[in-house]
Amino acid sequence: MNKQENKQPRVIIIGGGFGGVQLAKKLKDAPVDVLLLDKHNYHTFQPLLYQVATGAIEADSIGFPIRRIFSRQKNFTFHLASVDNIDTKTNTVETDAGNYTYDYLVIATGANTNFFGNQELEHYAMPMKNIAEALNIRSLMLQNLEKALVTSDKAERDALLTFVIVGGGPTGVELAGAISELRKYILCKDYPGLCNADMKVYLVEGKPELLAAMSSEASLKAKQFLKEMDVSIHTGVHVSSYNGSILKIDDGTVIQTRNVLWAAGVKGEVPNGMPEETVAKGGRLITDDINRIKGYSNIFAIGDVSFVQTDANPAGYPGVAQVALQQGKHLAKNLRNIIEGKPTTPFAYHDLGTMATIGRNKAVADLKKFKFQGFFAWLLWMFVHLLSLAGFSNKAIVFLNWAINYLTRNSDNRLVIRYFKTDTMTVDPVPR
Amino acid sequence: MNKQENKQPRVIIIGGGFGGVQLAKKLKDAPVDVLLLDKHNYHTFQPLLYQVATGAIEADSIGFPIRRIFSRQKNFTFHLASVDNIDTKTNTVETDAGNYTYDYLVIATGANTNFFGNQELEHYAMPMKNIAEALNIRSLMLQNLEKALVTSDKAERDALLTFVIVGGGPTGVELAGAISELRKYILCKDYPGLCNADMKVYLVEGKPELLAAMSSEASLKAKQFLKEMDVSIHTGVHVSSYNGSILKIDDGTVIQTRNVLWAAGVKGEVPNGMPEETVAKGGRLITDDINRIKGYSNIFAIGDVSFVQTDANPAGYPGVAQVALQQGKHLAKNLRNIIEGKPTTPFAYHDLGTMATIGRNKAVADLKKFKFQGFFAWLLWMFVHLLSLAGFSNKAIVFLNWAINYLTRNSDNRLVIRYFKTDTMTVDPVPR
Repeated sequence: MNKQENKQPRVIIIGGGFGGVQLAKKLKDAPVDVLLLDKHNYHTFQPLLYQVATGAIEADSIGFPIRRIFSRQKNFTFHLASVDNIDTKTNTVETDAGNYTYDYLVIATGANTNFFGNQELEHYAMPMKNIAEALNIRSLMLQNLEKALVTSDKAERDALLTFVIVGGGPTGVELAGAISELRKYILCKDYPGLCNADMKVYLVEGKPELLAAMSSEASLKAKQFLKEMDVSIHTGVHVSSYNGSILKIDDGTVIQTRNVLWAAGVKGEVPNGMPEETVAKGGRLITDDINRIKGYSNIFAIGDVSFVQTDANPAGYPGVAQVALQQGKHLAKNLRNIIEGKPTTPFAYHDLGTMATIGRNKAVADLKKFKFQGFFAWLLWMFVHLLSLAGFSNKAIVFLNWAINYLTRNSDNRLVIRYFKTDTMTVDPVPR
Repeated sequence: MNKQENKQPRVIIIGGGFGGVQLAKKLKDAPVDVLLLDKHNYHTFQPLLYQVATGAIEADSIGFPIRRIFSRQKNFTFHLASVDNIDTKTNTVETDAGNYTYDYLVIATGANTNFFGNQELEHYAMPMKNIAEALNIRSLMLQNLEKALVTSDKAERDALLTFVIVGGGPTGVELAGAISELRKYILCKDYPGLCNADMKVYLVEGKPELLAAMSSEASLKAKQFLKEMDVSIHTGVHVSSYNGSILKIDDGTVIQTRNVLWAAGVKGEVPNGMPEETVAKGGRLITDDINRIKGYSNIFAIGDVSFVQTDANPAGYPGVAQVALQQGKHLAKNLRNIIEGKPTTPFAYHDLGTMATIGRNKAVADLKKFKFQGFFAWLLWMFVHLLSLAGFSNKAIVFLNWAINYLTRNSDNRLVIRYFKTDTMTVDPVPR
């Protein structure tokens, strides 16, 4: 083996989410050098963000340091870096940690919250796409319960105790369920002064049904569960405005609230430098069936930021972890094929099913062969999520939290570690 | 029982630290209404802050919601409030959550970091008195390791890899030990590019010995442990300045460093409104032997903010958890005595001993009857701290972390959840 053979092509992956991490793992024995760039030094298990936001589990238990995942992978390097621009002419990724040239580039930047251009909503509604944002929601919620206890203004008290979740997909449904359970199990215990208060939980969805991407059985059962839990469901309507205290829905409903949680849409996180014609609606990068971006030979996109546009599948794949994981795995094979001069194979998504949990013993599951709801769906949901978490100690800690929560109907993670300032909607980084 | 009897005297406690929480607990069956005010909604187990700062344990596992501690105590109320002023003439505590009148007031606000008036140090050195500050240190440390990997400037790289801990008390010794272990066990695994880098750990103390409050055996052994762990120890000297990159010591030593952790002094957190003559050196409220503040009949101070000045004990008690706990317990008895018209009894501190841990299998313990160092001191240290943590799940999670850390010499809590901006020394509350 001569020295020349050591000069392997460099694959740069931007983003350490499900897709990026999976791709990097599967390139372990490939004849490439892998450089993963992310603005966070950890991988986030996004499906459990809502449990961090509602104080069920520790924030640190759904983050896993990227360096630890790859500590034994020789051809892997990680840099904490925020990408400023991609120069496709010189094959360069420009970041705040320096510039890097690539032979192959994979954009796996995922998606961020979409407020559809409404700046007032963007300012006042709470997004939940990363751990910091989930902790912001936790702080806001707990602070508003505290404020409700001491205010003498009845209308303000009602607004502080009114929670509106916008978006009836899995995230919105799970948040609405978790907040409703907090009302049922925690309010009286921890806030005796609010025991008889009228805390309200609303769920607002634009489509006619909740969980529109799931089966009608799942969708109807989720609605029934939430109704039993006294969540006020408004479907087929849209939020038209929210100014920090008054939320207006386009059917004329007006809700006074200090808590609006936004789970109503996402858009791809397209890095600067990618030309307009590569970007589809929703900020997704248009790719062919091997996840290669339109017009490029060496730039790819996977996961939520990608839009695999083929005749057989004109609408693309859903923005879920499974798609990202499978695309990461498949692209690893194709990158090897490309480097070795072999033919590539088209990506095909194997839908393993969808699940959403609404509360204690209450979940809905659509698997390939059968659909079921209730206790067994809930058990399966927990089992699948626990196994998917990175790291033994994260698994153990989340399991422990869940076991304790199940037995005591309580948790001890309801801490306001950063004070949320509702006037500016920012967090006070310095303790008061 | 007529209605009049329900109108019990109101005891306001400011601060939910060791002293305040203990006092409130021990007033459970006393004929008083207890109102606890704190600017945080949780009790912090400060002795383990250094483990949060160094990524050994989860932040949430050393915080426990105050409302949960007291959820079954009928005569207890908590309000999340930042105290603006105490009006001793009208017996009123003025806060951002409203004004409260008291019959008895107990100030248990603890102590904060003392930079001894040096504003440059206050700006650039990292304090560690609460969870937010511990997380700031974690972010800074991890970000600087990342920066060290990508910088091409050798001097800057050395500064990023140089850690100076100022203060050789238990906190400083524990921090120096933990950072030295991070260098030994983690650096090569997680940062292969820094494997052969010269990461330096300094410990600077003004007194001639480390752990000056402990026995000379403990003090010498701690020094020996730290030297074995390659910590550079400078005793009998003081930091004269630090401008964010150059630290100067008054013996002429100059250290280029981007990481200065400040554990060199505390001062009491005296609320506004307390007259100057009640405040002793170090910002502590002068009290008599029943912890009653000089010149007042109904205002008390316990814990780190108090200075029990008696002829028998002119120097006061050390600022440790045990003193606060015992004073809280004792004051509960005396408050009952006062209310019931019985004579009070003077507080006497029972020193149960002091411990400090330096690293894996390495700790020092001074108990009443004997002093020992090494493995058994370390076991005892862990046992005592674990049992002292509030809540079963915190105990279980910290134990789990410790067990995994012990077996794997690693942890998965090294997450930069908030980005620390070194130019302004503030945290970016909004994810980049």
